[in-house]
Amino acid sequence: LTAIATDDLCARILARDRRALARAASLIEARTGAGLAISKKLFAHTGRALVIGITGPSGAGKSTLVNQLTKHLRLEGKRVGILAVDPSSPFTQGAILGDRIRMQDHHADPEVFIRSTANRGKLGGLAATTLELTLLLDAAGMDVILVESVGVGQGEVDIARLADLTAVVLVPGLGDDVQAIKAGIMEVADVFVINKADRPGAEQLEQEIRAMQTLGSGSETKQPAPIYKVSASTGQGIDELLRALRSNAESRARRTGLSESWKLRLTELVREQLLAFLDERVLETHAERVAERTEDPFTAADQISKDLLARLR
Amino acid sequence: LTAIATDDLCARILARDRRALARAASLIEARTGAGLAISKKLFAHTGRALVIGITGPSGAGKSTLVNQLTKHLRLEGKRVGILAVDPSSPFTQGAILGDRIRMQDHHADPEVFIRSTANRGKLGGLAATTLELTLLLDAAGMDVILVESVGVGQGEVDIARLADLTAVVLVPGLGDDVQAIKAGIMEVADVFVINKADRPGAEQLEQEIRAMQTLGSGSETKQPAPIYKVSASTGQGIDELLRALRSNAESRARRTGLSESWKLRLTELVREQLLAFLDERVLETHAERVAERTEDPFTAADQISKDLLARLR
Repeated sequence: LTAIATDDLCARILARDRRALARAASLIEARTGAGLAISKKLFAHTGRALVIGITGPSGAGKSTLVNQLTKHLRLEGKRVGILAVDPSSPFTQGAILGDRIRMQDHHADPEVFIRSTANRGKLGGLAATTLELTLLLDAAGMDVILVESVGVGQGEVDIARLADLTAVVLVPGLGDDVQAIKAGIMEVADVFVINKADRPGAEQLEQEIRAMQTLGSGSETKQPAPIYKVSASTGQGIDELLRALRSNAESRARRTGLSESWKLRLTELVREQLLAFLDERVLETHAERVAERTEDPFTAADQISKDLLARLR
Repeated sequence: LTAIATDDLCARILARDRRALARAASLIEARTGAGLAISKKLFAHTGRALVIGITGPSGAGKSTLVNQLTKHLRLEGKRVGILAVDPSSPFTQGAILGDRIRMQDHHADPEVFIRSTANRGKLGGLAATTLELTLLLDAAGMDVILVESVGVGQGEVDIARLADLTAVVLVPGLGDDVQAIKAGIMEVADVFVINKADRPGAEQLEQEIRAMQTLGSGSETKQPAPIYKVSASTGQGIDELLRALRSNAESRARRTGLSESWKLRLTELVREQLLAFLDERVLETHAERVAERTEDPFTAADQISKDLLARLR
């Protein structure tokens, strides 16, 4: 895109043109120079939207919850942006597609913009892409942006750090395998949501969360995250949850300050920039040599760092 | 040191000369070129020792446990290396000093080598230092190396990843503040140890750990970490724990392979090399600008990365 075409696209996004918004989202997702130029240009027009991260294991009903929150926000006349992010392998995009179809309650609503994005594999950059898409929706006048991250693990934790606050959604009685979530995700929870709270086991799940909070998060001065019980399918408890999310975001902003949040996000962007270029095969080759004692680990680490720096130049 | 002096020092370490060992440890801790040269040179002579990480909140009795494990290992005629590592701020070295004094049960034993090391602040490199000291003790013929990491948090998790296996020590009835441990440390636990298990609350602590395991670690195919109850001060349960640690280390080595462990360690060394140079003031300056919307986050991240790369060259 020429500079003029970029300027024009940005002007149309600020004027809330949906087609311009979709075009820019595609440019950002493809990690193009034009996408980055748009993100930089629009940044001055951001900071108004409330960004809520929604995360948790698959099967917890995150998408149904996002759908229900959207419904309530629309009744208030709010404009809603929805991002579904899959930090897991590029091979699980099917799950997102399913979620996207379920989200079609709001598909025809011109005041709701839905986008899903996935890890494109080797190239990395998912934290950057998610941040850029969030800022894009913010600049386009969305009042609330719901960032749903699918999957489990470190990638999800990194994505959750980009939101103003993060709700971790759990559900009773799905057994160990499905309920399974990494300990790291617990640390980013500002609010816990027990979905399908009418099911047996909801009380036990609440007790388990509290036990884990006693054991796991007391080292920080922050209060344990509150637990809300909802039924995303019927809408029960959603009003209370929405109120809690808003007041939590406000008190958090007062407590930690904006530049503290940006320190975390910038560190995440830098870490991603640097480690995205770490070549798995280079790492493996050196690890094998070290395991065989034909190379020492310090020479190996130097070589891997040098290889990384050469790629970054 | 000249190359000849380095060679001589290495030869004396391999011949189990304690003074040479202490000298090399000091050179490594001071992050000198001679220290690194020694580490590289000795690496071919390592891989025989069992490296056990001992971690957990302060007050859990880690040092008493290390002392007791050492006593049992000495009865078997094993040579024992002990490293106490403090990943927290440089200002808490007093805690280590206290632990070091308590460790004096074995101070006069020529077959036990004790060393404590702390985070030297800005320079970073604690993971590298710990790995080098561990390898040094391995080359010097220690059969078992106990790496006790003091403090709580991410640094501790990184240190724990360097061991062959990690025991997380907890204690009942110390209340939330003292019991507080980061969720991340749970993920590195291969074995849980409930110390002072004769105290009231031991059963409850065991249940809490199990509840957390149900909730927190089922996503991996690995079995939940076993829980052992001991009294480090009386020695009760220590034999069983020692057996469990050994069989756990063996089955883990079979399961994941040596090069998998080295991939983790090398990634940790590279990450440390890169992020150690991230200047907190540079990060803060940019975060403030971004929060004020006078700079966009993508330009800021680029600037921070460039600043980092300039330092690395």
